[in-house]
Amino acid sequence: MDSQATVQLVERLQALCLDHGRSVATAESCTGGLVAKLFTDVPGSSGYYRGGVVAYSNEVKIRLLDVSEDELAAHGAVSAQVARSMAVGILRGTGVDLAVAITGVSGPGGGSAAKPVGLTYVAVADAAGAAVRRFVWTGDRSANREASARAAIEMLIERVSAGLESGTG
Amino acid sequence: MDSQATVQLVERLQALCLDHGRSVATAESCTGGLVAKLFTDVPGSSGYYRGGVVAYSNEVKIRLLDVSEDELAAHGAVSAQVARSMAVGILRGTGVDLAVAITGVSGPGGGSAAKPVGLTYVAVADAAGAAVRRFVWTGDRSANREASARAAIEMLIERVSAGLESGTG
Repeated sequence: MDSQATVQLVERLQALCLDHGRSVATAESCTGGLVAKLFTDVPGSSGYYRGGVVAYSNEVKIRLLDVSEDELAAHGAVSAQVARSMAVGILRGTGVDLAVAITGVSGPGGGSAAKPVGLTYVAVADAAGAAVRRFVWTGDRSANREASARAAIEMLIERVSAGLESGTG
Repeated sequence: MDSQATVQLVERLQALCLDHGRSVATAESCTGGLVAKLFTDVPGSSGYYRGGVVAYSNEVKIRLLDVSEDELAAHGAVSAQVARSMAVGILRGTGVDLAVAITGVSGPGGGSAAKPVGLTYVAVADAAGAAVRRFVWTGDRSANREASARAAIEMLIERVSAGLESGTG
C-alpha cells in the first residue's frame, strides 16, 4: 500500500526540512496516523518531525486540537473550516514551524449525498497563515487514505519550498 | 510489513471493544503512528478507537501528554516511568476507558550501552491503574516497530479480557 512514490515524497520532505531547519507536526482524522507512520518509517525523521495528534473522534479534536464544538456542529468534522482549525491547533499545541491536518470520509461507511465517501480536506498552517484544499477521491478506504496522505505530504513540500523562495520561511 | 497476524490481533481487539463498549486511545513515541494506523486500517474502528498522540519529540510528550520534564531528565524518554506517564497522560487527556503507550529505540540510530536499539517499554492504563512491560527486540527498524505495535495490541487485549473476567472492566 505504501507505494514507492509516496516514500520518495516523504524522503524529499525530510531532506528539505533537515536542510532548512523546519519542524513539522500532524493532525490526522481520516488518515488515522498513516502520515505520521510514513514520516517515522524513515530513519532520521526525528530531525524534523515532532509528532502530532490522531483526532479520530470529535472529542479528541476538541480536547487535543482546540477545535470548537460550535464549529464542528456548524460545518461537520469533514469541512474546510475544521481542517483549518485542526492545522492551527496542532501548530500552536506543538510549537512547530509547519503543520498539516487531514479530515475526510475514507469509507466504506460514513458517506452522504452532501459529503460522499472520498471527500477530504487537507490544510497546512504556519506563522504566515493557513491554506486548505478539497479533494474527492474515488478509491476504496485504503486507496483514499493513501491519496490523502500523499496530498498532505505534497502540500507540506510546496509550503516549505514557497517559504524558501520568498525568503519568509 | 503489516503481517496478517497483526491485522487479526487488531480485529480481535476491535471486536472485544465493540462488544463490551470499551474506548481506546494511544500515545506513541517509537512506533510513530503505526498502532493508530493499524487500528484505523479496519473499517468500523471509529466505534472504539478515539485517537491519540504521536509524541515523537520530548516537547510533544511534555505539551500534549503532560509528561514532566523532571521525569524525562531523570529516566530518559525510553523508560518504564515515561511509558507509564504517557499512558496515564493520554487516558486523562482523551477520557477513554483504556490507553496504551509505547516508547523505545527503534534504530538504526539512538542506541547506547544502557539503552540498546530494540529496547522498548509498553504501558497500558485504565481506571484501575497502569502496567508496564519491557522488551528488547533484535530486528531492524521496521521489524522492531512492528513487534512493538503487536505487543501494544496484545497488552490491550489482555487488559480488556481481564476486566471482563474480574467484572471490573
